[in-house]
Amino acid sequence: MKATVLVRLKSEVLDPQGDAVRRALGKLGFEGVKGVRVGKLIEIDLDDAAGPDVKARLEKMADEMLANPVIEDFEIKL
Amino acid sequence: MKATVLVRLKSEVLDPQGDAVRRALGKLGFEGVKGVRVGKLIEIDLDDAAGPDVKARLEKMADEMLANPVIEDFEIKL
Repeated sequence: MKATVLVRLKSEVLDPQGDAVRRALGKLGFEGVKGVRVGKLIEIDLDDAAGPDVKARLEKMADEMLANPVIEDFEIKL
Repeated sequence: MKATVLVRLKSEVLDPQGDAVRRALGKLGFEGVKGVRVGKLIEIDLDDAAGPDVKARLEKMADEMLANPVIEDFEIKL
């Protein structure tokens, strides 16, 4: 089975990469871009024997390794 | 309005970052992880005056700047 973990910087954390993208889009002539935030899209292919606790396991993975809980939030999609 | 651009490596492109995450998850004791792919989650805040052609504009942004079309595919969510 496939699972997706979306990792975003917390809203109160500055995102210099996103700001650079916003400015670059403006320079390329794309108007009306008020803000850009860049996060991670992590797609995980799991054994089908993953079992009913798969969401709890994914939350543990995200909390311990995929995201930095000090500055990032994560969302799990099954 | 908010739009999301998901950028993924094409399936035929190797993903060393994803492989490193897969191995690290195994070392941390998470079993059953067959594969991991890491992509980008780009969230764009657009002027509400973006208009009906907003999807076409986002596709142009993604094609010209947010993704590298040689090795990456993108998906736009409004």
